[in-house]
Amino acid sequence: MGKDIESSVEQGSGKDYHDPPPAPLIDAEELTKWSFYRAVIAEFIATLLFLYVTVLTVIGYKVQTDPLKNTVDPDCGGVGILGIAWAFGGMIFILVYCTAGISGGHINPAVTFGLFLGRKVSLIRAIMYMVAQCLGAICGCGLVKAFQKTYYNNYGGGANELQSGFNKGTGLGAEIIGTFVLVYTVFSATDPKRNARDSHVPVLAPLPIGFAVFMVHLATIPVTGTGINPARSFGAAVIYNKEKAWDDQWIFWVGPFIGAAIAAFYHQYILRAAAIKAFGSSRSN
Amino acid sequence: MGKDIESSVEQGSGKDYHDPPPAPLIDAEELTKWSFYRAVIAEFIATLLFLYVTVLTVIGYKVQTDPLKNTVDPDCGGVGILGIAWAFGGMIFILVYCTAGISGGHINPAVTFGLFLGRKVSLIRAIMYMVAQCLGAICGCGLVKAFQKTYYNNYGGGANELQSGFNKGTGLGAEIIGTFVLVYTVFSATDPKRNARDSHVPVLAPLPIGFAVFMVHLATIPVTGTGINPARSFGAAVIYNKEKAWDDQWIFWVGPFIGAAIAAFYHQYILRAAAIKAFGSSRSN
Amino acid sequence: MGKDIESSVEQGSGKDYHDPPPAPLIDAEELTKWSFYRAVIAEFIATLLFLYVTVLTVIGYKVQTDPLKNTVDPDCGGVGILGIAWAFGGMIFILVYCTAGISGGHINPAVTFGLFLGRKVSLIRAIMYMVAQCLGAICGCGLVKAFQKTYYNNYGGGANELQSGFNKGTGLGAEIIGTFVLVYTVFSATDPKRNARDSHVPVLAPLPIGFAVFMVHLATIPVTGTGINPARSFGAAVIYNKEKAWDDQWIFWVGPFIGAAIAAFYHQYILRAAAIKAFGSSRSN
Amino acid sequence: MGKDIESSVEQGSGKDYHDPPPAPLIDAEELTKWSFYRAVIAEFIATLLFLYVTVLTVIGYKVQTDPLKNTVDPDCGGVGILGIAWAFGGMIFILVYCTAGISGGHINPAVTFGLFLGRKVSLIRAIMYMVAQCLGAICGCGLVKAFQKTYYNNYGGGANELQSGFNKGTGLGAEIIGTFVLVYTVFSATDPKRNARDSHVPVLAPLPIGFAVFMVHLATIPVTGTGINPARSFGAAVIYNKEKAWDDQWIFWVGPFIGAAIAAFYHQYILRAAAIKAFGSSRSN
Repeated sequence: MGKDIESSVEQGSGKDYHDPPPAPLIDAEELTKWSFYRAVIAEFIATLLFLYVTVLTVIGYKVQTDPLKNTVDPDCGGVGILGIAWAFGGMIFILVYCTAGISGGHINPAVTFGLFLGRKVSLIRAIMYMVAQCLGAICGCGLVKAFQKTYYNNYGGGANELQSGFNKGTGLGAEIIGTFVLVYTVFSATDPKRNARDSHVPVLAPLPIGFAVFMVHLATIPVTGTGINPARSFGAAVIYNKEKAWDDQWIFWVGPFIGAAIAAFYHQYILRAAAIKAFGSSRSN
Repeated sequence: MGKDIESSVEQGSGKDYHDPPPAPLIDAEELTKWSFYRAVIAEFIATLLFLYVTVLTVIGYKVQTDPLKNTVDPDCGGVGILGIAWAFGGMIFILVYCTAGISGGHINPAVTFGLFLGRKVSLIRAIMYMVAQCLGAICGCGLVKAFQKTYYNNYGGGANELQSGFNKGTGLGAEIIGTFVLVYTVFSATDPKRNARDSHVPVLAPLPIGFAVFMVHLATIPVTGTGINPARSFGAAVIYNKEKAWDDQWIFWVGPFIGAAIAAFYHQYILRAAAIKAFGSSRSN
Repeated sequence: MGKDIESSVEQGSGKDYHDPPPAPLIDAEELTKWSFYRAVIAEFIATLLFLYVTVLTVIGYKVQTDPLKNTVDPDCGGVGILGIAWAFGGMIFILVYCTAGISGGHINPAVTFGLFLGRKVSLIRAIMYMVAQCLGAICGCGLVKAFQKTYYNNYGGGANELQSGFNKGTGLGAEIIGTFVLVYTVFSATDPKRNARDSHVPVLAPLPIGFAVFMVHLATIPVTGTGINPARSFGAAVIYNKEKAWDDQWIFWVGPFIGAAIAAFYHQYILRAAAIKAFGSSRSN
Repeated sequence: MGKDIESSVEQGSGKDYHDPPPAPLIDAEELTKWSFYRAVIAEFIATLLFLYVTVLTVIGYKVQTDPLKNTVDPDCGGVGILGIAWAFGGMIFILVYCTAGISGGHINPAVTFGLFLGRKVSLIRAIMYMVAQCLGAICGCGLVKAFQKTYYNNYGGGANELQSGFNKGTGLGAEIIGTFVLVYTVFSATDPKRNARDSHVPVLAPLPIGFAVFMVHLATIPVTGTGINPARSFGAAVIYNKEKAWDDQWIFWVGPFIGAAIAAFYHQYILRAAAIKAFGSSRSN
């Protein structure tokens, strides 16, 4: 890393980092590369594993908290909402860690949309990723249902639905802010300026991204079950296929896309201009 | 980092790190820079997100543990005090991670006060940060109330109040020591000497800072609900606006400011003198 | 790290990382080295500690949730399934951290099998590791039983058994996918290409590997108790020695080995070809 | 980094790291340095904060799980044993992080004893650290008692006592193995060879050390309450001052010291010889 700093300074550039050019809308060349298809496969597999582990955790939790079924541990046998939030956040941590070098580690159409708006990925790549993510989510939920159909149907199938006591506007707002937290963290973590910064701000992207997902689940599971990932909400709705899950489905697409757009705007237009100078002035003045 | 070490050694300095000069009390020049206003905006947004996520978690927890409301999971449906402590600590982790390069990542008037005493920020910057933090906290709590007014009011609004069984002196002491733990960690994590130290002490500032907040919440939620952040206590009191929250409010300003001052003193006058030599003697003698 | 990149580019190699040659099937020379036997000892001790801590946690949890025994905290006194999942994941984190430099930090015959298929270890080393792991697991469980025989037998001995409501095919599937998640993370974390990649994908192998174990336990404790480690299942079965544990034992060998093989195949044949180029195209286009 | 290893081997040096000489038994010179006294102060403050936060968490947990006192959340109001285990592990994480550069971050007489046996610290330093740790622990527990005397006495004062159902031999064994896990992790994390190793084994010492403490608490809270730190057990016994806590006190000194000695032996005599070669043979054969 020291070398990057050195060499760019040597080139007489005022900036000590390399800002990649914006991605083109359509990049015909990338369609000819195996690496493109491999990235799409990696997004598919990662979203499949994400939904499989998390929905299985949700179902397992509900099996064990069902007072009609268990007599020994009626209340606390399951992992709790805290455990469910860990499942979502922890899976994102390990999957971003594993796929970041292959596909960029999106695993979420809202993240892909935000990075597309920030011109980090081409339009064709964004669309292909979203399709792969939705198919992966459907397969992941399908696996859980195949494992145990009765439990799956009885315990809600991990589908996102507005909880009683909250109206649609609240649900939409919760999804917008929740996705903002996630996509803002993604932009902060992958900012090329980060490499050049002083070392008390280390580069550990997958961990804070996973924690952002964990935090939002703690806060909004009681509101919407927490989507902030349209593929996750769509896959669960396709496999669960009950009316309520479909009626609320639009919230889990419109909310995350608006939240991602606001995060992309906030990062690109408010925070990016001259970040290094700001930092310097706050530290060494 | 290797380069920093190298260059300062080249300069013939006995120290292998660069100690920035103390910040001036008033720095007129920083007021002319966009980076200053951007930092204030980043503090506002970060404190807003901090209060929004954490207070929503607190309310959601109480909704689900209310025995009059839920019949299925009366005791364990919510995330528990452990989950609430994670929400506070985890949000500080990701927000410090995201804003450290923009504003220094304070998100807390007590941290700003401690860093001002340590001459890391100017007076004008300290005041502007505190105003932004308090406004952000008010907006964050306001969002939660706007989402669900009934629950918000019934379940205490996330306001800090002295719990029954503890007197005011105890509450003040808990806030002082709790803030000391946090600000001591902040000073340790951002110490410019850290870069120069032997590599078994890595530089991962946001994670231990987040954990410090997590730990203090585990310990003192049963005592005061845990403030250690005057903006958090003030924002919740403004939106909740009940007498008890206002009566105890002074504790959540005086305590954190005293704790931050002690931490600044401990770090600057006890620990900083010749840290490298101490370390060398303990390792290689 | 910058240096590695530089030097290999200078050498005119198209790749900026060093791919070690595949391990031979049988390497007579390694049998003459102390480092080989030390690695086997480290695997034995690590697996012993792994089973000791995790099975003691499982038993302690069940002691405290037994309604016939405790009157004060019938439901929530123990650490919960979330705590058990942390015990498994956290132990793998610290043991991989401690033994990675000595033995590679497998602590699991399925990981050893996957790395053998990926030609990372020789056949003789793979077999010796598996034997050491199984012996270590037996000793670790034996220690727990020696501590408290009554509790150990009454509370299931930490043995993996198919839970009621799930059939054998489901259990096998859960073990296959769970081990896939683990071994896929191991391959991603130890990929020699990782060092050469852009720095937003840091190298923190033991933490995501530990989290992978944590996540799979959250999801499949209600299905099979979660094996994904044949030594763990075998050691517990030997010491507990009840019929049901032995009847299901094959699931906990066949499942993990299939899952590890699929992960090795996925990593080597789908993901490895030209990873750097894929990454570049997604970032800088 | 593989290259680093290679190049230093090329330079004819067998080792690519710097092994500090063993600490002398008595080092008169260090008594003349301010850094020595500062290190002792840092150990005192860190152990004080450790006991304060953890014992307050234990008491707070018991207040809220007391069925005679709380009517709303009889079972799950507190943070649970999982939260208590987090408090111990998390505090060690942040305190080792903060004090590693000042005193080496022991915060535990058993760790100091292990590092003394490994010749990392002088005898005089070891004794002074242990005295500071015990005094700090007494003050930390004293603070909790000063805050709320009634709760402190009613809920056991955080003292370590053998739990019913376990005999003294078991308690001693649990302390020996638990301390072995901790001190083994400390030796692994601070090994000077670590810097020289291949980069998939990163250097993040405080985190795995904190996790080791967390794991051992999950496993042995139901057995002994978990000591593995004689200062912690001693401080709690002094302030709580009940007969049972004093009767079992020897277990919490003898056990940890034996465990630390075994870990020092295991690390120095089994693992240290030729670690680099072992690693190379397991990776590239």
